[in-house]
Amino acid sequence: MSEIRTVRGMRDLMGKEMLVRNYLIEQAVQVFRSFGYEPLDSPVMELWETLSAKGGDEVEAETFKFEDKGGREVGLRFDLTVPLARIVATNLHLPKPFKRYAIGKAWRYDRPQAGRYREFMQADVDVIGASSPAADAEVVLVALEFSRRVLKTNYIVRINNRKVLKGLTEIAGVPDDLAHECFRSIDKLDKIGKKGVLEELSSRGISKESSEKLLDAIELRGNGLDVLDKFAELLKESEIGTEGVEELKFMAEIFEETEVSSLVEFDMALARGLDYYTGAVFEGRYLGKPALGSIFGGGRYDHLIERFGGQPTPATGISLGIGRLVDVLIAMGETDGLESELQVFIAPLKRPMVRYAARLANEFAKADVTVEFDLMERSLKKLLALSDSKGARFTVIVGPRDLEKGQVSIRNMETKDTVLINLEDAVEYVSSKL
Amino acid sequence: MSEIRTVRGMRDLMGKEMLVRNYLIEQAVQVFRSFGYEPLDSPVMELWETLSAKGGDEVEAETFKFEDKGGREVGLRFDLTVPLARIVATNLHLPKPFKRYAIGKAWRYDRPQAGRYREFMQADVDVIGASSPAADAEVVLVALEFSRRVLKTNYIVRINNRKVLKGLTEIAGVPDDLAHECFRSIDKLDKIGKKGVLEELSSRGISKESSEKLLDAIELRGNGLDVLDKFAELLKESEIGTEGVEELKFMAEIFEETEVSSLVEFDMALARGLDYYTGAVFEGRYLGKPALGSIFGGGRYDHLIERFGGQPTPATGISLGIGRLVDVLIAMGETDGLESELQVFIAPLKRPMVRYAARLANEFAKADVTVEFDLMERSLKKLLALSDSKGARFTVIVGPRDLEKGQVSIRNMETKDTVLINLEDAVEYVSSKL
Repeated sequence: MSEIRTVRGMRDLMGKEMLVRNYLIEQAVQVFRSFGYEPLDSPVMELWETLSAKGGDEVEAETFKFEDKGGREVGLRFDLTVPLARIVATNLHLPKPFKRYAIGKAWRYDRPQAGRYREFMQADVDVIGASSPAADAEVVLVALEFSRRVLKTNYIVRINNRKVLKGLTEIAGVPDDLAHECFRSIDKLDKIGKKGVLEELSSRGISKESSEKLLDAIELRGNGLDVLDKFAELLKESEIGTEGVEELKFMAEIFEETEVSSLVEFDMALARGLDYYTGAVFEGRYLGKPALGSIFGGGRYDHLIERFGGQPTPATGISLGIGRLVDVLIAMGETDGLESELQVFIAPLKRPMVRYAARLANEFAKADVTVEFDLMERSLKKLLALSDSKGARFTVIVGPRDLEKGQVSIRNMETKDTVLINLEDAVEYVSSKL
Repeated sequence: MSEIRTVRGMRDLMGKEMLVRNYLIEQAVQVFRSFGYEPLDSPVMELWETLSAKGGDEVEAETFKFEDKGGREVGLRFDLTVPLARIVATNLHLPKPFKRYAIGKAWRYDRPQAGRYREFMQADVDVIGASSPAADAEVVLVALEFSRRVLKTNYIVRINNRKVLKGLTEIAGVPDDLAHECFRSIDKLDKIGKKGVLEELSSRGISKESSEKLLDAIELRGNGLDVLDKFAELLKESEIGTEGVEELKFMAEIFEETEVSSLVEFDMALARGLDYYTGAVFEGRYLGKPALGSIFGGGRYDHLIERFGGQPTPATGISLGIGRLVDVLIAMGETDGLESELQVFIAPLKRPMVRYAARLANEFAKADVTVEFDLMERSLKKLLALSDSKGARFTVIVGPRDLEKGQVSIRNMETKDTVLINLEDAVEYVSSKL
């Protein structure tokens, strides 16, 4: 019994936090379904061959990897994108576009810190098989509609495009093989400031001249098509950069048709960490406290499915960070009304009354009325206090004398009125009053 | 790219199977909440110290166990009871009874076979802190109400009590240290028959005389209080046996008050595999095809929480096998109406129309209307055929000429009637027709 606790960096969820998470998942499912996405689930573990196909140096260091009893290397998934890519690569008959949602846990062997756990829950939507920037816009609209429902206000999405960043490095004269390193430094602008980025670029071997060109550009950000005209002007000499700006413009035109346009910020400094993005990248931020970093993020990954042996397949998707949003909603205090209200508490007064209490509980539950009956053989006084503290609307008192006449007492906990009702009419009586 | 597939014994869930699983979980949550259970979630992995505290020789062989990068031994949970026992043992402030539900996956390194996977989903309810058999009866009522909702018919629950079995071994003269071995053999009566059980008992070192006494008894089974009178008569010389029968009678009295009484079979041969059961044990069976074994099971485990360093705490619970029920419902063909109906399909006729299609999709989704818009720039003919094959109720056609007048065409896919509606009135128009 030396150690009875959770695994480091992981947490139990109960009480209010659990109710908030269930609420967030319900809302996400509603939005995902409205936008025509279908559910998919995959095992929590994948063969190591699959997980490592995603590439990136950090995959192995961050993965819970182990050998199963058959000596085969497996690992817990670190996101919901790898399982999707595997499924798409191996199921050639899927209709395109294939729009799926997935809600589940993923695991990363990170350093645990505030708002970051080694086990976390994500809710993802992805569109497989559509190269149009309309698909990128759609997954952003999904995330924004979800955010509107659960946060109401205080959130934005920042958007950029990897082709824009590639164009930028071309213009700035950064060698091709340093481009991804360069993106990683640029992405840290908000965290480490211009000076920090400059130092990182220099340490990565990028020339002072290139670095300064980059730094001039990466502060470009703003709403709507105007800022994209500036992107276009800056990148007019780069073919790939211009292509990226065109894709962003297509997205911007869609957003301009909706009321979310003011929530969308095009941001030349946004890169997102993953190596496999090929086009649009997006990141949602909650602007209130606690400042927990991104609440959703994603992007286009047109070459990932090939890495799993699949056909070349355009793909884009977005992932909602459910765990962080639990913390945000708790901090906002916007959690009233999430607890399922106890509607009826049943108080059997003696052991032989328990069977009638259980019978009534069963009937109430069948009628979708939330009910509990006393399992502890407590006194009436205690039971009424308990029913009150649980917020029950009605207490049904099953006593021997009433029961001899086939009746039970039903107490309205608000008005304190008590009526005698025939046992078989109790559910109908209470249901009519709820 | 040598191996791109799922881990052995695990499966992806999509399409109809996934919709069925979501339906089962929704129904379970509804029933659990109606009976006053609150949700709880825990990490998928536990420290090995925790998992091994449950005891039993097979735990290590059946667990996905590994060392994390810090050299600490951890394992994937093999049920939802161990995490609950850990939480109860370490959270001394929980109000009693603590009634929690949990829905999640668990993992066992079994031999994969039909209907059995190494990753499986369970939905559990447990009552912590109540020693009354009313709590045992309640969790059975929960499982039966869930079964009624999803299966309608063709299911029963078999119930026994470990004290009854203990009494039986006393009467039969089986040595104490062989009692659990003996339970395991008895439990196999349905699988291997009387002759098989006799052979097993003999091989476990139980005398012929004892074995024959056991075999006479374990065929006792039936509905209601009458069969329990036979249990009582048989065990009248055993104090613990008599106590067990009294507990079963309390449960039977509760069931007799409800309409589920005919679904409850008291069965002297039911033992259930786990060593830690201390009182009532229950097992639900689906009687139709495919014959998948138990669909739910559980029992009372009054000493488990102590094994995790907690206070002595009575506890009972039941676990629904969601994965098996998915297979049952698919086989029953009772899966119509689970697919979320696509209500509106939006067909933009040219690329510049896509932004209006996206705008409309966003507005429909905000109004909880299930909608998709074309992301593939297909022709009208193809889009109408697609909309039809997806079962959409309406197709909204966004064409350049209509749009010049601020209008879109809305086609009722059933009547084939098409009307021109102002863009801003489209959602209201369609919503009013759904």
